[in-house]
Amino acid sequence: MTNKLYNLVIVGYGGMGSYHAKLLKENQTINVIGTFDILEERRIAALVDGYKVYESYEAVLADKNVDLVLIATPNDVHKEIAIAALNANKHVICEKPVTIYSEDLKEIMKVAEATQRKFVVHQNRRWDKDFLTIKKIYDETIIGNVFHIESRVQGANGIPGDWRHLKAPGGGMLLDWGVHLLDQLLFMVDSKITNVYANLSYVLGDEVDDGFQTIITFENGSTALIEVGTTNFIQLPRWYVKGTAGTAVIEDWNITGKIVTQNFGVDFEAPKPIQAGQGLTKTMAPPSEAAVSTSDLPEVDQTMESFYDNVISVIEEKAEPIVKNTEVLRVLRLIETIFKAAETNEVFKDFDTY
Amino acid sequence: MTNKLYNLVIVGYGGMGSYHAKLLKENQTINVIGTFDILEERRIAALVDGYKVYESYEAVLADKNVDLVLIATPNDVHKEIAIAALNANKHVICEKPVTIYSEDLKEIMKVAEATQRKFVVHQNRRWDKDFLTIKKIYDETIIGNVFHIESRVQGANGIPGDWRHLKAPGGGMLLDWGVHLLDQLLFMVDSKITNVYANLSYVLGDEVDDGFQTIITFENGSTALIEVGTTNFIQLPRWYVKGTAGTAVIEDWNITGKIVTQNFGVDFEAPKPIQAGQGLTKTMAPPSEAAVSTSDLPEVDQTMESFYDNVISVIEEKAEPIVKNTEVLRVLRLIETIFKAAETNEVFKDFDTY
Repeated sequence: MTNKLYNLVIVGYGGMGSYHAKLLKENQTINVIGTFDILEERRIAALVDGYKVYESYEAVLADKNVDLVLIATPNDVHKEIAIAALNANKHVICEKPVTIYSEDLKEIMKVAEATQRKFVVHQNRRWDKDFLTIKKIYDETIIGNVFHIESRVQGANGIPGDWRHLKAPGGGMLLDWGVHLLDQLLFMVDSKITNVYANLSYVLGDEVDDGFQTIITFENGSTALIEVGTTNFIQLPRWYVKGTAGTAVIEDWNITGKIVTQNFGVDFEAPKPIQAGQGLTKTMAPPSEAAVSTSDLPEVDQTMESFYDNVISVIEEKAEPIVKNTEVLRVLRLIETIFKAAETNEVFKDFDTY
Repeated sequence: MTNKLYNLVIVGYGGMGSYHAKLLKENQTINVIGTFDILEERRIAALVDGYKVYESYEAVLADKNVDLVLIATPNDVHKEIAIAALNANKHVICEKPVTIYSEDLKEIMKVAEATQRKFVVHQNRRWDKDFLTIKKIYDETIIGNVFHIESRVQGANGIPGDWRHLKAPGGGMLLDWGVHLLDQLLFMVDSKITNVYANLSYVLGDEVDDGFQTIITFENGSTALIEVGTTNFIQLPRWYVKGTAGTAVIEDWNITGKIVTQNFGVDFEAPKPIQAGQGLTKTMAPPSEAAVSTSDLPEVDQTMESFYDNVISVIEEKAEPIVKNTEVLRVLRLIETIFKAAETNEVFKDFDTY
């Protein structure tokens, strides 16, 4: 890689800001030289953790030693902080969702272009092992051609604290976990979206969604059911994926799961009808033993550059960003479409016509 | 009950017809006195099973000893067989789906009204123990007010044999298992439908659907995801139901499952963040132990009259039908709406405006 050390300031020292600080301790190229937060308690937390605390954001921007600004504030102020940093000749790493509205991201992208600075969004869940396992199954057609994907995260703890309960700063679960699950989906499936249906949940009585289900149809014929729930006391599997030759399931973050595939070209008995409630069913009976094979999930070898390393490679013009801003923009447009689809109870068909 | 013995003829001696014959052996009030089928092999099967075989349907209708006709033929001929039987002064039990089109059921209902004969559809899965367990949870608010219901059957054997592969006789899974799952849903949820979204699957290359997902929204704010699959090598739970105080799951026909409910008014620790892929999550962390209780599914006591007994009670004017024709008609209209919604990729909002 490089010999240069890049100095980074974390703006917004809450949950994600301090999490970045911890992760970056192990990074050899990026050096966290300070933090900025408007809240006194967060400044104290940063000092306790051993970081310099800037007195103002202007002071961060004026510091010629700062190469990179990492934004981990509420979502509604990402844009102004990002644009100011780019104009002050800093590169920017920004937490997700990058902005609440796609128009705001377009503005940031224009400034990044004009200032020739790099702006990269922290869509870190492209590196999640559960996702990479499914992506490998998808890319290598391990269960044949995948035609249906179900991707869920289900919690029982409601919406997490503070601003995520509020609409103005970009709260709600679609903009929180939703942006990850949709980003993973669009990163994996290389096809235009033809239909978007969505249903937001407001059962907790917040002004923002506490979860959602969306069904997305692609031009290649495949479908996806994406769900975030915060009122689920029992969890369905994290991933459930159907291919033309089998089904794959990942239960949880520990990558518990399996693959069951059809044995083609093998003579086997027809399934025997089973008693199901008040009736017999052959349709829903388990296939005969010789008809299917059960196997472990594939191992993924981590070949993608890490997020932070990729940011540095991008700055040094050595690599393309793994998280491209055009992709982030498409996900944000999809989120806007999901909001509209849920609000109007309509299927949106004009998403990918551009 | 009654002392009279009712003589029944089974028309269509295939899978369901012969299944009825077996079940009715144990019934004290209904006597299977014969069968009729247009296929030679089915007539032989009936003879082997010890049943008289009528030479023609006219002979069945002309036989004054016949009180009841049970129709278990392909769906497209239910109507003419039913109307002929009613006009010949017979009562009728009809397999599901009663007809392919709701207009046909309306015609049958008119003839039943005019002839003062009873016409009852065999929606037997209202008696399924898994369904009755969920209905008890729903009715008795065991997990609070239920606001989301997922009801699935998933097989790996494709569409079952013969005419169910074909469009004309009413094949496909929406008209097969779909009619059961939708009948159960509408029998349980007493609310108007406001939105119908649906997605049919044609992955097996048949001219009829090999499965579907539909999301139905009710006026009372609750939602339902109903799914039938025949290309699922791994099965998701049969039922997954969310209430304001907890979640219930039934895995399979053996009624394996559990209920997890929230402990209200108890002081407990906030959930601890867990590592999930590349990030920490508190939202999706398991609740602290004191926050929830796990319990067994409730036992259901079978208090509903059996299907056949209810038919006799209805004939003797001693009871209302458990399966009302107006309910069957509503389910059939819903199926028609699901077909339209899937075909046009539109959300249908005018289903229950009548």
